Amino acid sequence: MQDLSPAGAPLLLTDVVEPGVVRLTLNRPEARNALSRALLDNVHAAIVELGRDKSVAVIILAAAGKVFSSGHDLKEMTAHRTDADCGEAFFRDTMTACSAMMRGIVACPKPVIAAVEGRATAAGCQLVATCDLAVAAASADFATPGVNIGLFCSTPMVALSRNVSRKRAMEMLLLGEAISATDAVAYGLLNRVVPDGDVMREALSMARAIAAKSKATVAIGKAAFYRQAELPLDEAYAYASEVMVKNMMEADAGEGICAFLEKRKPEWKDS
Amino acid sequence: MQDLSPAGAPLLLTDVVEPGVVRLTLNRPEARNALSRALLDNVHAAIVELGRDKSVAVIILAAAGKVFSSGHDLKEMTAHRTDADCGEAFFRDTMTACSAMMRGIVACPKPVIAAVEGRATAAGCQLVATCDLAVAAASADFATPGVNIGLFCSTPMVALSRNVSRKRAMEMLLLGEAISATDAVAYGLLNRVVPDGDVMREALSMARAIAAKSKATVAIGKAAFYRQAELPLDEAYAYASEVMVKNMMEADAGEGICAFLEKRKPEWKDS
Amino acid sequence: MQDLSPAGAPLLLTDVVEPGVVRLTLNRPEARNALSRALLDNVHAAIVELGRDKSVAVIILAAAGKVFSSGHDLKEMTAHRTDADCGEAFFRDTMTACSAMMRGIVACPKPVIAAVEGRATAAGCQLVATCDLAVAAASADFATPGVNIGLFCSTPMVALSRNVSRKRAMEMLLLGEAISATDAVAYGLLNRVVPDGDVMREALSMARAIAAKSKATVAIGKAAFYRQAELPLDEAYAYASEVMVKNMMEADAGEGICAFLEKRKPEWKDS
Repeated sequence: MQDLSPAGAPLLLTDVVEPGVVRLTLNRPEARNALSRALLDNVHAAIVELGRDKSVAVIILAAAGKVFSSGHDLKEMTAHRTDADCGEAFFRDTMTACSAMMRGIVACPKPVIAAVEGRATAAGCQLVATCDLAVAAASADFATPGVNIGLFCSTPMVALSRNVSRKRAMEMLLLGEAISATDAVAYGLLNRVVPDGDVMREALSMARAIAAKSKATVAIGKAAFYRQAELPLDEAYAYASEVMVKNMMEADAGEGICAFLEKRKPEWKDS
Repeated sequence: MQDLSPAGAPLLLTDVVEPGVVRLTLNRPEARNALSRALLDNVHAAIVELGRDKSVAVIILAAAGKVFSSGHDLKEMTAHRTDADCGEAFFRDTMTACSAMMRGIVACPKPVIAAVEGRATAAGCQLVATCDLAVAAASADFATPGVNIGLFCSTPMVALSRNVSRKRAMEMLLLGEAISATDAVAYGLLNRVVPDGDVMREALSMARAIAAKSKATVAIGKAAFYRQAELPLDEAYAYASEVMVKNMMEADAGEGICAFLEKRKPEWKDS
Repeated sequence: MQDLSPAGAPLLLTDVVEPGVVRLTLNRPEARNALSRALLDNVHAAIVELGRDKSVAVIILAAAGKVFSSGHDLKEMTAHRTDADCGEAFFRDTMTACSAMMRGIVACPKPVIAAVEGRATAAGCQLVATCDLAVAAASADFATPGVNIGLFCSTPMVALSRNVSRKRAMEMLLLGEAISATDAVAYGLLNRVVPDGDVMREALSMARAIAAKSKATVAIGKAAFYRQAELPLDEAYAYASEVMVKNMMEADAGEGICAFLEKRKPEWKDS
């Protein structure tokens, strides 16, 4: 299931950092963690699998080496220019797989936290935008530079423009220049920026806090968040009210509210 | 029409601060201004009534005591766990009433300004997000901590996520931690933060400015704002253009524009 | 095609600042660059024409005199109060023409950069919000003060509320007060604020960067940006993926990616 690099290393590393917290590490540092066709599938499969794994509460998405991810694998894509259709079928397949992976993160019942050291560009920047939460090192930066090579970052913009205001997203997309981690926090692309070297510690601190909650409750809330965001106000309230009622009838809400009223720590049942 | 606390105090106080400016004060300080079933109805009824009252220009929503509002009344909800249906009907009724009250604030033709001292959590934070404008004391803070008690803040997120960017809303919802008033201004949840003790003065200063406008014009604009926000660009322009034409044919636009061209103060007719 | 002021000056000036960069200058300084019926048509026609002109890469929108634009021409509108229908047909025609011009900027395949010196109010503020990018002088300010004259800024709010968060937009619309350029950057209405006198230099620096890209690529990306922004996530990804595939099959993507892999400057073919 795991693909290997020519040197025999897995493209994606998986490790349990602490109980409930799993880290996925993009592991193509020699290729700036470019999202090759195989790596896209590996990330997607891992997200789906961890989403179903009852022992997992949170996923941290990290990367090996000095670059978080440079986006699509341009060498792989260019190699397919010699296909009979000049690569069209391969590009379509890659874009479909990439979008499916990104939507897989949104659909995953477990929160996904991007832990970013180094540069995140194009689909790499999109990956950060797509995660539920994101922490970065002070020296990290972010760009959607496709316009510089004639390939506008049209799929990255889907995630970017749902995190960052229009004029800022447009500036990143039209100029193709990188923004600093500090600007990325101010613009809404990141939750937190920390000194270089502290990224995993900070991501872990957020992950640990989430792992202490009821998994059932977190899953209900994450799904509701993205669904209500696309509804008009009245429909959003009708939908969210019903989510609240169902959540209230779950065992963990009963336990959590009792524990709160009795001033004790809750003991989650669905976790 | 007004419900009373066991001690005989009205759950909601109403007073005319100055001509055109009415203050509603959540008055369950002993229960951290929890939004009990009765209080929800009282707030909703007051908003509807003030919305129809021609003497009212603006509503300020304040709270008695040290907490703005702690959200739903967990004791009341837990008491209904012994109902034959384990409380499901009561929870559904409460959620429906709460969402109806929130939508009532949006639908009210008069602007509603939250004046926040102390902590606003869960549905209390939602109330602040729902108001058209919001001012808070420097020591106030804001949280959606339902996740901590197994009941994700799914209805609060509807209002929160329409004020605050995705990653920040997600952080508040998943971690359940409070943000300061200063952060709340930066994130878009508040308009202004002022020193403790100055909240009513600041809210009143905004209210006074609005009360000096044409009520008919403000009503047209507030309704248009929330409606166009949910439309695609072309439809939003078609709708807003027609709103402008109707507004232009109202007496107050004629008077306002004449006064402006003649460099004198307007005398509103519909106010 | 160009309308003239009573003094014989064109209402809108057009000049090529450098190859690929065209500046449009609102030229009614004596009327605070109010968007008269004729000026609306002149701007709209120029945007359409420049959008089709293969030599043009970017448009800078500037203004002559001390005010960027005061919005609609209230004197012209008031003059039509004596029409048989009290001006209703003229107002409707003006609103329709104004919205069509604004949508024309969004639909234009060339990026439009607002270069703002002085005050931009009402439809003038809307114009800044509508441009893809915006730079302003430190002393510039921005307001939607229609509420002060009984005519709520309902069409300006369409653009404003797509740039600025709800509470901030509501504050501008309900209070009618001006915000500084510094606040406008923080709120998302502007990309950059620069010292007075440096606005054209800064706008030109952004324009020059964009003019160096492939025009075909920029056109694909700009259109995709505004379209995907109005779609739910799944549809946005399906649409953007197909845009990426088509973009990839264009000559400029082939050239751009090859040049990147070969570490040389690209030579655009569609530009």
